[in-house]
Amino acid sequence: MEKLSTQVAIIGSGPAGLLLGQLLYKAGIDHLIIEQRSADYVAARIRAGILEQVSVDLLRKAGVAENLEKYGLPHDGIEILTHQKKHRINLNKLTGGKQVTVYGQTEVTKDLMQARESQQLQTFYEADNVRIHDFDTQPYVTFDNKRQSFRIDCQFIAGCDGFHGVCRASVPQEKIKTFEKVYPFGWLGVLADVPPVSEELIYVQSERGFALCSMRSNTRSRYYIQVPITDSVENWSDEAFWAELKNRLDEDSRNKLVTGASIEKSIAPLRSFITEPMRFGKLFLAGDAAHIVPPTGAKGLNLAASDIGFLAEAFIEYFNRHSEHGIDNYSQKCLARVWKAERFSWWMTHLLHRFDTESEFDHRMKQAELSYILESFAGQSSLAENYVGLPFEADVKLAALNA
Amino acid sequence: MEKLSTQVAIIGSGPAGLLLGQLLYKAGIDHLIIEQRSADYVAARIRAGILEQVSVDLLRKAGVAENLEKYGLPHDGIEILTHQKKHRINLNKLTGGKQVTVYGQTEVTKDLMQARESQQLQTFYEADNVRIHDFDTQPYVTFDNKRQSFRIDCQFIAGCDGFHGVCRASVPQEKIKTFEKVYPFGWLGVLADVPPVSEELIYVQSERGFALCSMRSNTRSRYYIQVPITDSVENWSDEAFWAELKNRLDEDSRNKLVTGASIEKSIAPLRSFITEPMRFGKLFLAGDAAHIVPPTGAKGLNLAASDIGFLAEAFIEYFNRHSEHGIDNYSQKCLARVWKAERFSWWMTHLLHRFDTESEFDHRMKQAELSYILESFAGQSSLAENYVGLPFEADVKLAALNA
Repeated sequence: MEKLSTQVAIIGSGPAGLLLGQLLYKAGIDHLIIEQRSADYVAARIRAGILEQVSVDLLRKAGVAENLEKYGLPHDGIEILTHQKKHRINLNKLTGGKQVTVYGQTEVTKDLMQARESQQLQTFYEADNVRIHDFDTQPYVTFDNKRQSFRIDCQFIAGCDGFHGVCRASVPQEKIKTFEKVYPFGWLGVLADVPPVSEELIYVQSERGFALCSMRSNTRSRYYIQVPITDSVENWSDEAFWAELKNRLDEDSRNKLVTGASIEKSIAPLRSFITEPMRFGKLFLAGDAAHIVPPTGAKGLNLAASDIGFLAEAFIEYFNRHSEHGIDNYSQKCLARVWKAERFSWWMTHLLHRFDTESEFDHRMKQAELSYILESFAGQSSLAENYVGLPFEADVKLAALNA
Repeated sequence: MEKLSTQVAIIGSGPAGLLLGQLLYKAGIDHLIIEQRSADYVAARIRAGILEQVSVDLLRKAGVAENLEKYGLPHDGIEILTHQKKHRINLNKLTGGKQVTVYGQTEVTKDLMQARESQQLQTFYEADNVRIHDFDTQPYVTFDNKRQSFRIDCQFIAGCDGFHGVCRASVPQEKIKTFEKVYPFGWLGVLADVPPVSEELIYVQSERGFALCSMRSNTRSRYYIQVPITDSVENWSDEAFWAELKNRLDEDSRNKLVTGASIEKSIAPLRSFITEPMRFGKLFLAGDAAHIVPPTGAKGLNLAASDIGFLAEAFIEYFNRHSEHGIDNYSQKCLARVWKAERFSWWMTHLLHRFDTESEFDHRMKQAELSYILESFAGQSSLAENYVGLPFEADVKLAALNA
């Protein structure tokens, strides 16, 4: 067995783990990343693509925002389509100048991997039998890699290994509480090299179910339609997908839609999941390892980024400023933000999707809620501030009001 | 049988029927009111007591606002108590200067009855066997009163006879659609001649269930606690009520609470109910005859008032300006407002009450929503604008934003 030691062992090299590694590197904190999958697999995973301003700022701070700044598409608004009519939500004006940036999670991952490579930071890809040990006392990680066994002694373990990862699963049941909601539908997504139907995202609420017109760039589109969770991607030819998408659009969008061969097609389940707490001794969970949001509202990557922002800061405080304040408050700080983002993601999912189980009363309540939001400055402001990401500091307008 | 004729036959002399009568009288439109109950019964019914600005304006227009202006308590804010901490919602500042007025529905009814009496307008109280006929063609109303049978021929019938009234029940089932939600709890209410615990209403969200500290005047308080719908008022001594109310309050409120003998105590069920449409030929439903809201948010009387505002205007347009525009648009105009008020009432009920059926996930989503609202200017603004009553005209700030 080969023995190594480091300050922080990061389990998982998705965007959360990679970003943490990058921020620790910048702060001169020693770390290693251990990843079950291959580098190619990680780089190719297709995920969401909407970054909040705070996520962009963090990537900039990590020094990996060059491509993001070059190729990212700043968006000042979104469209909500209901009853065959589009309503624009002016995110920028409603939030006093904020915006979101369309830039695929795949690209974020690639940028981070590239930076890591150029800095010659160590990642163990294709690690088998990853186990974390003694995180209440003197933590270490064991795994097998290229026919060799490793043991990494460390001061902290960062669990960035996703929903199915080993880190959360290693916490004794009596120390962890989880909350979950599984939705009775999925998103059938198609990626295609066609120009997007609209410069901005269109969130579609229709009697046939939800749809989303999204994009990765000006030449690559990402479209989704709500399908029953029991459905299978084999049931959906490209033609059938485009036809059903058109059924859910307004006439104008239907006419403008450019269709083409799918380069990826899959059904993603929707899940809300929260773990409390997010720290267990010297183990810290971050991103999907601790919480999952349904994709409506695009909070998944952004929540991972804000966790990592808190965690990097906590480690920097610990190692460079000899304070345990950050690590002691990590869980609470993250969870305050997590629950609000979970609430928003649940709410947008609830509002825009068709639930077979909902009563006529429930359905009409949702319609009334959507009408209200679309007709009200306060309603739209609430949606907008959540969509671009709630501020980390207290609401300044509210503070002024109550002063 | 005695035969009479009038322009508008109003069924029901609650605040809706009385207010309509008053507005028609002012416009010189002939009408009669037919009421099943006695005048004393009507005058003594205890109901809610929060008036939106638009309701106050309408009562002023009807010339019955003298006492309201003298004794009504303008409120610029409400408190929301959660996790033992009160949070003030500054309704006034959040809505650009609006407020609500605390003035018992009982008082509104008395003022309207008094005006009616002084104007010598005719009301048939204690009318038996009230029936409405031929409202698709030539409507008339029949009833028995003081051992005599009456037939009143009219041009229109206004159904202001409440949830259990004869008007909605007379519409053929295939012409009407109803939406309903019954809640698994009720409000145990106590009226007592003690000064209110706080100058403003306190809406209480607690692990033991909802409570509301309300008042009718500076010397008369109205308190409510959520109880199971299966509970009975006989199970609740005054002492038990005050003790449980205190259990749900914060320490400060608990210390300030002045208790006393109840002068009324009852359990009210909570229901959401909507009828579509609200016009059937020459029959127009208004107020509780068409829709019921749970009391959270105090929308019941205000919705009735706005229905009556639309209906009086429609009749005035018809009789005095020879236009059918108002009566043709009555149902649609009312329902746009009704659904939004139903949505708000359902939402406030949902947010603040304890539901035994809710999952831990659902419960925490509500907590997260409440935290978000209390920390956000936009969230509080949305609550506030609904609480004081949504404007009749389009949102001016939104119009400016999209101009």
